[in-house]
Amino acid sequence: MIRIGIMGYGNLGRGVEYAVAQNPDMQLAAVFTRRDPASIQAATPDVPVLAAGKAAEMQDKIDVMILCGGSATDLPKQTPALARLFNVVDSFDTHARIPEHFAAVDAAAKEGGTLALISAGWDPGLFSLSRVYAGAVLPQGETYTFWGKGVSQGHSDAIRRVEGVQDARQYTVPVESALEAVRSGAQPVLTTRQKHTRECFVVAKPGADTARIEKEIKEMPNYFADYDTTVHFISEEELLRDHAGLPHGGMVIRTGKTGKDSANTHVIEYKLTLDSNPEFTSSILVAYARAVWRMHEAGQQGCKTVLDVPPALLSPLSGEELRATML
Amino acid sequence: MIRIGIMGYGNLGRGVEYAVAQNPDMQLAAVFTRRDPASIQAATPDVPVLAAGKAAEMQDKIDVMILCGGSATDLPKQTPALARLFNVVDSFDTHARIPEHFAAVDAAAKEGGTLALISAGWDPGLFSLSRVYAGAVLPQGETYTFWGKGVSQGHSDAIRRVEGVQDARQYTVPVESALEAVRSGAQPVLTTRQKHTRECFVVAKPGADTARIEKEIKEMPNYFADYDTTVHFISEEELLRDHAGLPHGGMVIRTGKTGKDSANTHVIEYKLTLDSNPEFTSSILVAYARAVWRMHEAGQQGCKTVLDVPPALLSPLSGEELRATML
Repeated sequence: MIRIGIMGYGNLGRGVEYAVAQNPDMQLAAVFTRRDPASIQAATPDVPVLAAGKAAEMQDKIDVMILCGGSATDLPKQTPALARLFNVVDSFDTHARIPEHFAAVDAAAKEGGTLALISAGWDPGLFSLSRVYAGAVLPQGETYTFWGKGVSQGHSDAIRRVEGVQDARQYTVPVESALEAVRSGAQPVLTTRQKHTRECFVVAKPGADTARIEKEIKEMPNYFADYDTTVHFISEEELLRDHAGLPHGGMVIRTGKTGKDSANTHVIEYKLTLDSNPEFTSSILVAYARAVWRMHEAGQQGCKTVLDVPPALLSPLSGEELRATML
Repeated sequence: MIRIGIMGYGNLGRGVEYAVAQNPDMQLAAVFTRRDPASIQAATPDVPVLAAGKAAEMQDKIDVMILCGGSATDLPKQTPALARLFNVVDSFDTHARIPEHFAAVDAAAKEGGTLALISAGWDPGLFSLSRVYAGAVLPQGETYTFWGKGVSQGHSDAIRRVEGVQDARQYTVPVESALEAVRSGAQPVLTTRQKHTRECFVVAKPGADTARIEKEIKEMPNYFADYDTTVHFISEEELLRDHAGLPHGGMVIRTGKTGKDSANTHVIEYKLTLDSNPEFTSSILVAYARAVWRMHEAGQQGCKTVLDVPPALLSPLSGEELRATML
């Protein structure tokens, strides 16, 4: 049994807990939180909920610690710190800062004699795998990544910071005509605006100026200004009733040419349709925890990403079973 | 530069030749054939075309030999024999016999101190990867593989063996309603007949009894009896004009549940749409040749499959470049 620790008990941490329960070769050893542990009841019977600061005391009871904090401020500190003590997996998803995060975690893990795997989720993560496999197989081609339809929590938060907004939910939606153009193999050059639209459901505070709110949202740099954005004002009841979930998904599509005079076109498409973004990410973290444990047992140390992990290590099946049933 | 040898110069071998030309870190060292080498002109200038029996003489000029023979009779002999001399990649695709092929090749490669990778194509191959990744991430779910729309060469050959048939092309077609049921997350149990139909385009010999031919095709055990099969009689001109290509493709779809009371459903879909089945397979073989060479350089020996290969090894980019641009 692989003994799993969960650091951080929000949406992602709870998802990890449920995912561990689906994997018969794993057991949950402890949940760590920065809140008051007495205020938290884990879903798994008899699992200790401990203060985050107590993690070091559990070093010999945990095989892999799954880090469920955020990429903005938690993981840049937590992952290196905990990689000195534990094999770790995180879902660090700030693409531009992955090289620096990798370097910090690699140094820490080598110091601790542990194995760390960063950026395991779906993007970065499963989508990265698709980009690398498809790019290697079709070197003469183009890769496109589309996100949605799904809730962007960062964009929803940005709307909530607009004055007069009580609550909001933002959906990122891929543009159907762009998808069609990509799938045709035409390798179009697409602008930001051509690839995705943004759809916002906003609950305004009583008496707020909705015209001003809409204008502020649509003109917000980086978040909305480069997109065709739609704003719908709805009631709090409607928001809770129709927009409570965190669905997401997207597609990685690569088209490429092969053969004499590059006459033949091929399309590789990898598509995710997810009811719950955090629970799906959690499930990936747990599968990679298995691989991390096996790689550490085999003597590997330092920082890895999903690109370094042989797929067989993710599966509970043996190499023999995989060849007989899955190949 | 990785020096590639091609054993067998049919559709697959020619595809490998074009794929090697798309990869700047590779060069074609020699083509081997069982036909008269003087009768063959390689597409690549100045590449020697040699008799298959001369392969051993080229041992120090080839880093990876790509085996382009058939799975029925060529590869079971060729792959073990050549793995004693070279690092090899093959596309062995008789799923049921993979374990025995693996054992034979593993013994030969260990004897030769080489690295061999078998069953690199799209099914087995990229589809196997999708099945393993998706199965590991969503342990509580079902995986479905659909093939087509595309030309099945085995089924086309079977029709050609019917008396009175001059030529034929058979398309395997996934049933749209089955795809919809699978994508809905309902995890339906589907019979062979419910998943695919078979569409046959047949050129009858002059005076042949087309009613008898159609009946024989539709009742052919294993190949057609378990499917809804349509037979169209067409002229040779139509066959050449409309059915000259070898398109194929398919989908691996896994749906699974996560979270409290398994309330959330997720769909992972991997889809290929290929103008040329052999050229796409060739492109995969070439990408895996890079990985095979790197793994051998790192000291690994014996037989591997795609499930054992870290994705990063397929890409010409370094780990640092991959993390900065592809993750």
